[in-house]
Amino acid sequence: MAPNELFQYSVISALMDGVASTGVSVAQLPRHGNHGLGTFRHMLGEMILLDGQVFQMRSDGSVTAIDETAASDAVAPFAMVTQFEPTATVRTAISSKQALADLLTRTLPGTRNHFLAFQVHGVFTLTVRTVGGQTVPHESLRELGRHQATHDFAEVEGTIVGFRSPAFMQGISVVGDHLHFISADRTHGGHVLACRSASEAQVAAAALTSVRLELPRGDDEYNEAKLEADAEGIAAVEG
Amino acid sequence: MAPNELFQYSVISALMDGVASTGVSVAQLPRHGNHGLGTFRHMLGEMILLDGQVFQMRSDGSVTAIDETAASDAVAPFAMVTQFEPTATVRTAISSKQALADLLTRTLPGTRNHFLAFQVHGVFTLTVRTVGGQTVPHESLRELGRHQATHDFAEVEGTIVGFRSPAFMQGISVVGDHLHFISADRTHGGHVLACRSASEAQVAAAALTSVRLELPRGDDEYNEAKLEADAEGIAAVEG
Repeated sequence: MAPNELFQYSVISALMDGVASTGVSVAQLPRHGNHGLGTFRHMLGEMILLDGQVFQMRSDGSVTAIDETAASDAVAPFAMVTQFEPTATVRTAISSKQALADLLTRTLPGTRNHFLAFQVHGVFTLTVRTVGGQTVPHESLRELGRHQATHDFAEVEGTIVGFRSPAFMQGISVVGDHLHFISADRTHGGHVLACRSASEAQVAAAALTSVRLELPRGDDEYNEAKLEADAEGIAAVEG
Repeated sequence: MAPNELFQYSVISALMDGVASTGVSVAQLPRHGNHGLGTFRHMLGEMILLDGQVFQMRSDGSVTAIDETAASDAVAPFAMVTQFEPTATVRTAISSKQALADLLTRTLPGTRNHFLAFQVHGVFTLTVRTVGGQTVPHESLRELGRHQATHDFAEVEGTIVGFRSPAFMQGISVVGDHLHFISADRTHGGHVLACRSASEAQVAAAALTSVRLELPRGDDEYNEAKLEADAEGIAAVEG
């Protein structure tokens, strides 16, 4: 993929409908870029792709690097990946997730109808969640969100990998900012619910205007899903 | 582009908001495929791409083949194009637009969450509309739809070029079936409001699961547009 093109597999409303039995090969994700997030089969944890390496962050707090062998049967029912080449960088303290959002908007003006990719590196105090995986077939992401595990980390060094999706992508991508975190020692991480930096953090970002969307093929579960945009449900679990 | 991959430029909600001053080069559209539809700068008529040739169909009833010279400054603010390779063909009479929709659903089962591309060749009695172009800046497609020209054709041979977009693409593509027609002698055509075939027609179709979406870059009009999905408005003018 060319730099700052977005590859997306499936649509977020499919996860909302519990479509998570198959997916794109995790082993192939680094071919689409070095920066990504998503989830795994049966929504068993949070996926983060950073510097070409895929990690699985589970609700028990464990973080596993997915090597090529393991990845051969690992699939992502939803993923967003780009070959990230930042066009803007800022060093500043981040007081909250909302402050980060405002900073990104100021840093890349004229992008309200584009996607953004961004990375934030620093020392953070944050709350992350990790979904525990479906316990029954077709269990929806909204239902999983009701019994997600949350973890609090104090002053841990690491990187936030994020995407912003424009409002008109409702039901397809995660509208607004979607952030996953992994610690520098690759032992902690998850989907970021709240964050602030202990000191100055390094923020790097780029606008994305070209999207390659791959829809699941030969997947009865996907084919039969209603995929009605559940804006409230997506915001509740992915916000 | 690989066969049956969908290239789309901009989003339909941008047209609804009257964003139509710039766009993708019409000269470049055939690089993305041999089958397409869209509109022109200021929504001046309906665009159809068939067998590698782009035509402009205006509200005065004229049809112009856009040659390479003219195309160098012609732009499409919205376009959908694919390299169409049908995977299913049917010969049957078409009694209405809805009957065609039902036939496509039966012919390609398991595709409710995919896109379809289709062509119908035959002798048709049909009603088409052609938008007359913006008369003031930012005039929305919904407003244009209120004073569109319609033309009735009786038993004219020609081809319908169509796309079906899944429900979750609301605001991005034209949800449901979107059909443009051009006569075999390339003198008549437009956006199909109603159609029936005089006898058996040849229906060819394929499912599309890979989408490349290009968003406008460096376009202030696009950047500032609200792009709120106006489902009712889109259905009123594109249905």
